[in-house]
Amino acid sequence: MKRNKPMQVAIVTLEAFNELDSFVASAIVNRAPGVQAAICCPSDCVTSMNGVRVVAQAPLEAVAEADAVLIGSGRRTRDYLEDASFLSRIKLDSSRQLIGAQCSGVLLLHRLGLIGTAATSDTTSTPLLQEWGVCVTGAPLHVEGNVATAGGCLSSQYLASWMLARMCGWQTAARIVRDVAPVGHQEEYVQRTSDLVKPTLLPIGPSS
Amino acid sequence: MKRNKPMQVAIVTLEAFNELDSFVASAIVNRAPGVQAAICCPSDCVTSMNGVRVVAQAPLEAVAEADAVLIGSGRRTRDYLEDASFLSRIKLDSSRQLIGAQCSGVLLLHRLGLIGTAATSDTTSTPLLQEWGVCVTGAPLHVEGNVATAGGCLSSQYLASWMLARMCGWQTAARIVRDVAPVGHQEEYVQRTSDLVKPTLLPIGPSS
Repeated sequence: MKRNKPMQVAIVTLEAFNELDSFVASAIVNRAPGVQAAICCPSDCVTSMNGVRVVAQAPLEAVAEADAVLIGSGRRTRDYLEDASFLSRIKLDSSRQLIGAQCSGVLLLHRLGLIGTAATSDTTSTPLLQEWGVCVTGAPLHVEGNVATAGGCLSSQYLASWMLARMCGWQTAARIVRDVAPVGHQEEYVQRTSDLVKPTLLPIGPSS
Repeated sequence: MKRNKPMQVAIVTLEAFNELDSFVASAIVNRAPGVQAAICCPSDCVTSMNGVRVVAQAPLEAVAEADAVLIGSGRRTRDYLEDASFLSRIKLDSSRQLIGAQCSGVLLLHRLGLIGTAATSDTTSTPLLQEWGVCVTGAPLHVEGNVATAGGCLSSQYLASWMLARMCGWQTAARIVRDVAPVGHQEEYVQRTSDLVKPTLLPIGPSS
């Protein structure tokens, strides 16, 4: 994946979004050399579930051009699920993009046709996924090919780490996990992430 | 601490701020009933170290009225350390406020006269603190009375948990840690936070 243009990661960030999803992921991803995350929103400005107003770094349509996409959760996801015009703006292709979602973001990913027979999510979104015939694993992270799902706000760190491991290799991902971990807990953080992410990596490593 | 008005937590968020500090803390604190966190900035709008523009929820001066204050880190902290007019806008009183800082935010707290003989921080800020005569413990969280310091981006969760434990009691803090933890890792997250926070709590619990 060596090239001059940074790899682009679109962080889908909607009205009433959860800061722990969008910002933990974007801050971790942005630490990787040659990788650039952008907060992608359906309008120029969105407001978090806690009333924090954030200016979009890119429009929702940037998702189509991104190398990787993460969809976080929020308090208004169920409205978005019913919004055909909103959904039509998100063009995903799991054959060429890495795609991840967490918590209610997994509902959106399912609606967009990207969830197979199994996924993971948080306890709030699990009943609806099960109603839709998805086997919810209850694991922090579940990976099928280029699509990863996660559950629980702070699982955003695992989604970001999985994505970095796929884009830049495990060593880079591990270095960044160590950099953002609480001091004194670095090795514990790397080990826990390794236990989740390493088994999901393809037997042949990234070409970088 | 029972009363009708929510307890106010000011999250000091400066130019080039680290999202992992301000937003992990604010998102966790905002989950507590009767507690309200606000992103407090030196101007109407600040831009994170990764180029995310955020609108202030309150001015820096709101710190003086808050029940609790958290100071995160950022890429421009060392400029702020030399800015007397900026520093004069932050009025802190550790006899009536809970105060926390992490990473380079600890440098600011020292400059404001709130750090005693010992603190913790990240590896980047540690040499300067040591030069100033502070013993840096290397622990994820260090608490002296009403002042807590932490090191490593994701130690923001420990600062927030300590603050909630002091304001609402350990049971509420533990419930919120469980709520934001990755699914499947909830008990591990609660246990690790408990190991850090519980020994710092006063023998007589909060009056709530």
